[in-house]
Amino acid sequence: MPMKFKVEEIKKIAKNLFLSAGASGQEAEIVAEEIVEASLMGLDSHGIMRISQYLEQVNEGLIKPDRAINIIFETSVSAIVDCDWNFGMVCARKMTDIVIEKANKSNIAVAVSRHCNHMGRLGSYTQRVAEAGLFGFAAVNSSRHGHFVAPFGGADGRLATNPLSYAVPTGGNPILLDTSTSMISEGKIRVLMHQGKELPDNCVLTYDGRPTNKPEEFYNPKKGTILPFGGEMGYKGFGLGLLVEVLGSTLSGIPVTPDGEKDEYINGFFIMAINPKIFGIENELIENMEILKEYVKSARPAKDSKGVFMPGELDFMTKAERLKNGIEVADETWKQIVNAAKLFNVAL
Amino acid sequence: MPMKFKVEEIKKIAKNLFLSAGASGQEAEIVAEEIVEASLMGLDSHGIMRISQYLEQVNEGLIKPDRAINIIFETSVSAIVDCDWNFGMVCARKMTDIVIEKANKSNIAVAVSRHCNHMGRLGSYTQRVAEAGLFGFAAVNSSRHGHFVAPFGGADGRLATNPLSYAVPTGGNPILLDTSTSMISEGKIRVLMHQGKELPDNCVLTYDGRPTNKPEEFYNPKKGTILPFGGEMGYKGFGLGLLVEVLGSTLSGIPVTPDGEKDEYINGFFIMAINPKIFGIENELIENMEILKEYVKSARPAKDSKGVFMPGELDFMTKAERLKNGIEVADETWKQIVNAAKLFNVAL
Repeated sequence: MPMKFKVEEIKKIAKNLFLSAGASGQEAEIVAEEIVEASLMGLDSHGIMRISQYLEQVNEGLIKPDRAINIIFETSVSAIVDCDWNFGMVCARKMTDIVIEKANKSNIAVAVSRHCNHMGRLGSYTQRVAEAGLFGFAAVNSSRHGHFVAPFGGADGRLATNPLSYAVPTGGNPILLDTSTSMISEGKIRVLMHQGKELPDNCVLTYDGRPTNKPEEFYNPKKGTILPFGGEMGYKGFGLGLLVEVLGSTLSGIPVTPDGEKDEYINGFFIMAINPKIFGIENELIENMEILKEYVKSARPAKDSKGVFMPGELDFMTKAERLKNGIEVADETWKQIVNAAKLFNVAL
Repeated sequence: MPMKFKVEEIKKIAKNLFLSAGASGQEAEIVAEEIVEASLMGLDSHGIMRISQYLEQVNEGLIKPDRAINIIFETSVSAIVDCDWNFGMVCARKMTDIVIEKANKSNIAVAVSRHCNHMGRLGSYTQRVAEAGLFGFAAVNSSRHGHFVAPFGGADGRLATNPLSYAVPTGGNPILLDTSTSMISEGKIRVLMHQGKELPDNCVLTYDGRPTNKPEEFYNPKKGTILPFGGEMGYKGFGLGLLVEVLGSTLSGIPVTPDGEKDEYINGFFIMAINPKIFGIENELIENMEILKEYVKSARPAKDSKGVFMPGELDFMTKAERLKNGIEVADETWKQIVNAAKLFNVAL
């Protein structure tokens, strides 16, 4: 029987745990907020189940709370931000605030990261840009350690699941796409294996480069690969995954880590904000977006479909439901949190 | 038996035709170059077969050669460019030059279009940005007239095939992705119908919203829809198609045309250039990209695969082959060019 928490309740628990782990008040607040928001939006893989992981990573010295996050190089339209291994969410939030501020002054701005840990739900940051009235775009790659995804035609992992996201203000919730460029996540493969279930078709290759539906063949005898998004047209998903790789690290100044060397980052985060006033529509953007939304949603439903939902719409519906009814936390997840809390002498 | 032309030969024919149709010398040169380059790169649908179409559109007053293309609003990082219905390619080329110039001075730049005709191969313009040493990104939407693509879950066309493209400099040809966000193009459906062939699975819905493999069911009894890219995960392709719609017109200042009104554009073109020097790597970008290229291509080939090709790599191979051996032009295409030439009293 999973436990159920009210939002403020689980957020308070998370915040206190991160405080105990050495985060400043502001950092603990941000990480707790981002984690709970991910669970609210239905992205459980980036939500409450990450609390124990982050605590363990602080304990292992991988996350270094309370380290100063500094801009190491900037122009009026850009910033390179060194996170110095603080919480990735704290860094991503700061970078988001930087591009919003710069785009308000200079119309467009981008920021890229250095020494950044896992930064959670990518859509959180583009959403924040859209809520500031701007167009937001973001991408996040991962270091070589997370390269499970094969390039199209290949049988070795060369990219991570590399999500990209954009958000645009409307009269209601923003239009918010937050999508990986692969067919499935490694976490999902593990879940299906533990449940004794089969993989969906055309998502995973064995080490020998053969398609498989058996989750265990992804891990044994040697690690297989996840396919890029798109099936037979996977060259499109690969091309988009490569875009994320380029934005997250190559273009922003960090080449792929040579084999055997220590990675310079966990996540490479790229975020951009564009001020609609450069298109002469300081005030009309929301009106234009409402017209577009109405037009797109007016399409008749396809056979067996519940109709058209704008990117993010279902997630905001999940959020409304969970805000009202609370968030379920699996027993195993709670057990892991309780155990991780002990690392910092907190009894839950 | 298709005719075969040397590149310079067909380019000269095209240039002379556009001159006869009223284009300035520079305009005729650009349009001929863009068209022939599209055929060279293997994108025949945007190549030589467009010559007759553009000539006819000039004749009908839809394309207005020699009209001045003006920046109607600009900042140091942006420009709104009014094409005044000149050739779309002339406009897109000018916009590309504008973002390159601005990004060289101001580090980042975007340009959006007004009253723009069909601008051809999208990748041509990002490639040009990359060849100038910058990162290029572009998207192009179409007016309501071209809305064949259903939103995910829907059964009415609400988007065009909405391609997006990016290009990055390397030591050799740029990395160059140029990809639609739909499963198939309307042109391809027509070709398959004329050939008496079936459609691939999960590409097209009938007017009633049922999947079909029969090309004629896309047209009869009422127009069906093309599915967004991604099959069961078509919400991803829809989200990306909507991004292109937003960049091409909504964000850039033009709402969807109300039903029954004259469209304000054929293509809505968005292009962006980012100068790598804002990431502290004025000189290392090419080196970083070569490391990435080598790493990605070193993946072992999957079963039955010829190995890994970087985005654009196969197109540049097609170009090398056609530069050497010439470009084939189908009899029907040549007949259409000969007929269109007569509109301007040119005998071929």
